[in-house]
Amino acid sequence: MTQPAPARAPEIGLPITAVDTPALFVDLDALEHNAATMARVCRERGVVWRPHVKASKAPELAKRLIAAGAVGITCAKVGEAEVMADAGVEDILIANEIVGPLKIARLVALAARARVCVAVDDERNLREISAAAAPAGVTVDLLVDINVGANRCGVTPEAAPALARLAIDLPGVGFRGLMGYEGHVMGITDLEEKEARSAAAASVFAEARRQVEAAGIAVGIMSGGGTGNYWMAARLGSLNELQAGGGVLLDQTYSDSMKVPGHRHALFLVAQVISTAVPGRAVGDAGWKASGQHTGRPLAVAPAGVTVRGLNAEHTIFELAPGTRVEPGDRVTMIPHYSDSTMLLHRRLYAVRDGVVEAAWPIAGAGMLQ
Amino acid sequence: MTQPAPARAPEIGLPITAVDTPALFVDLDALEHNAATMARVCRERGVVWRPHVKASKAPELAKRLIAAGAVGITCAKVGEAEVMADAGVEDILIANEIVGPLKIARLVALAARARVCVAVDDERNLREISAAAAPAGVTVDLLVDINVGANRCGVTPEAAPALARLAIDLPGVGFRGLMGYEGHVMGITDLEEKEARSAAAASVFAEARRQVEAAGIAVGIMSGGGTGNYWMAARLGSLNELQAGGGVLLDQTYSDSMKVPGHRHALFLVAQVISTAVPGRAVGDAGWKASGQHTGRPLAVAPAGVTVRGLNAEHTIFELAPGTRVEPGDRVTMIPHYSDSTMLLHRRLYAVRDGVVEAAWPIAGAGMLQ
Repeated sequence: MTQPAPARAPEIGLPITAVDTPALFVDLDALEHNAATMARVCRERGVVWRPHVKASKAPELAKRLIAAGAVGITCAKVGEAEVMADAGVEDILIANEIVGPLKIARLVALAARARVCVAVDDERNLREISAAAAPAGVTVDLLVDINVGANRCGVTPEAAPALARLAIDLPGVGFRGLMGYEGHVMGITDLEEKEARSAAAASVFAEARRQVEAAGIAVGIMSGGGTGNYWMAARLGSLNELQAGGGVLLDQTYSDSMKVPGHRHALFLVAQVISTAVPGRAVGDAGWKASGQHTGRPLAVAPAGVTVRGLNAEHTIFELAPGTRVEPGDRVTMIPHYSDSTMLLHRRLYAVRDGVVEAAWPIAGAGMLQ
Repeated sequence: MTQPAPARAPEIGLPITAVDTPALFVDLDALEHNAATMARVCRERGVVWRPHVKASKAPELAKRLIAAGAVGITCAKVGEAEVMADAGVEDILIANEIVGPLKIARLVALAARARVCVAVDDERNLREISAAAAPAGVTVDLLVDINVGANRCGVTPEAAPALARLAIDLPGVGFRGLMGYEGHVMGITDLEEKEARSAAAASVFAEARRQVEAAGIAVGIMSGGGTGNYWMAARLGSLNELQAGGGVLLDQTYSDSMKVPGHRHALFLVAQVISTAVPGRAVGDAGWKASGQHTGRPLAVAPAGVTVRGLNAEHTIFELAPGTRVEPGDRVTMIPHYSDSTMLLHRRLYAVRDGVVEAAWPIAGAGMLQ
């Protein structure tokens, strides 16, 4: 199901205006600053960094994070993990339940060529993974998923020891530790409330560890944290592996809704003006089919005087401040509202430094839905 | 920039449960009913049907519409038109302005292998298309785009004759007629108001024709209409070509928000339950990365007692009516809220009849952003 990588882009080495629109650009200086920031926070707290690449979906970007200090990567699904393994990433956490014979078969095939770890919260599912992995002679590592307050997936601390024991006893699987993702705290903008809710989640997570250890089982990995609270989560003491990764791109959602401190905007969407026929406005070629908008609109940052008034499917509706003049063919640079809902619409991420295209990274995980 | 078609899907000839989740299915009986309905309305009104394929993006589906009576297809951008031409579609309207040297060069290349027509609303843009097409020895057909009330692209009726004259006089381009897309009326749910606003748009469109004809220029094509008003637009008399096409899939947006009469739901999204660890709910594997949600949530139609409570990026949050029992691995069938924002997230559309997969159509236009 993986797609072949596109051929080498002809725009490499040229100014960004050589790239047709709409297009996504990552500023390499900002990306490197953000990755270094996250790696440093983890290092200072003694926490392993295994960043989630669900937002970028680009193996070349994932490799940059590993070069910056990440121990491996985190994915949301088997399809994403497959394209990362295709690109040579060798240590992959799928932070999700993998269910059904079709997907478990792919998981087992993946475990034959990369170290792969998945979340479990169901006994039958755990037995099915074991039954598929054992005859293939591979080991699928498991984290028992704990519901730390998001009320999505995950068992209670009380139910954790039985699943951990089963993961130890069955062939083809290995118990590596616990996962507790506090998805419900990411969007909290009040930093005191975010701290309190993160601490409450950490307390449930720590309780799960106590319960498993009380059953005589050693817990290795304690994985959690997202970009929306990572700088808090890394010092709360319940986790020793951080999944946060999306913040390396720092879109509006991370900067404004999630209040991530100390990062720089790294992801930009460039549109081209296609019509100025209606007075007082201009129309661009990046609509909501090029920029996810369920969380909000992209923010125009250049040229001055241009504001995003709305998105149609294939059209940006720009409002022009008095005296602002743009013409068909002019370019408008925007910060997407949310990288997660934008990257998957594109096929290439253009890596740029000082206005010059250094690389065109395939967004190989886009469309890998299963 | 086109992607190679995926290899033949192994699920063909098998029941739909052989397809891994999340996945999109089109019910062929419903699709054929809807296409026949639109073709009949056009035939009865003496209007040419050139359906828009911006929603489906699947060349095989486009060919079914041509087989059902469409004269050709309508696209939103050059990338979509290229994949349609690759698949053998020979008559393509790009109902949008095509701006800038990179895209105009692709437009000219496209015109060498298909009959291609685009919208123009700017003199310089028209001159640039002519300057690129003439030396290549091809003709790009043009429709002068009229603003009939959507206030997006398009000139006033008064400005139309000058552009039409230029399109006649310059080499490499040909004046084919006018376009007037009434995007602002599609979402109106009150049918009387929709009729009145459609009539007002038709009146502006008719005025543009009068102005062009008063300048001694014959107008061929009068193109407009969307699924949200096509049954009205087809009898208002100002247009002779209908662009409406998305309604062949009939999602919730078309049935509920746009009040399209006489069609059947044809597009279905199937998720798999991946967790039931949290009491009272179940979690599925189709989140907003598999189902566009800026217009609303997908509607669960089977099994009974399951309701979509929300979407996370990769998770459907299902609420269960009292007494409803589902387990990991169970499947839930949903109607997407909007096909336009859902299809582009997938790579294959599974064509199904009586529960058996007849074909797996590549959604080749997904990701063709430019």
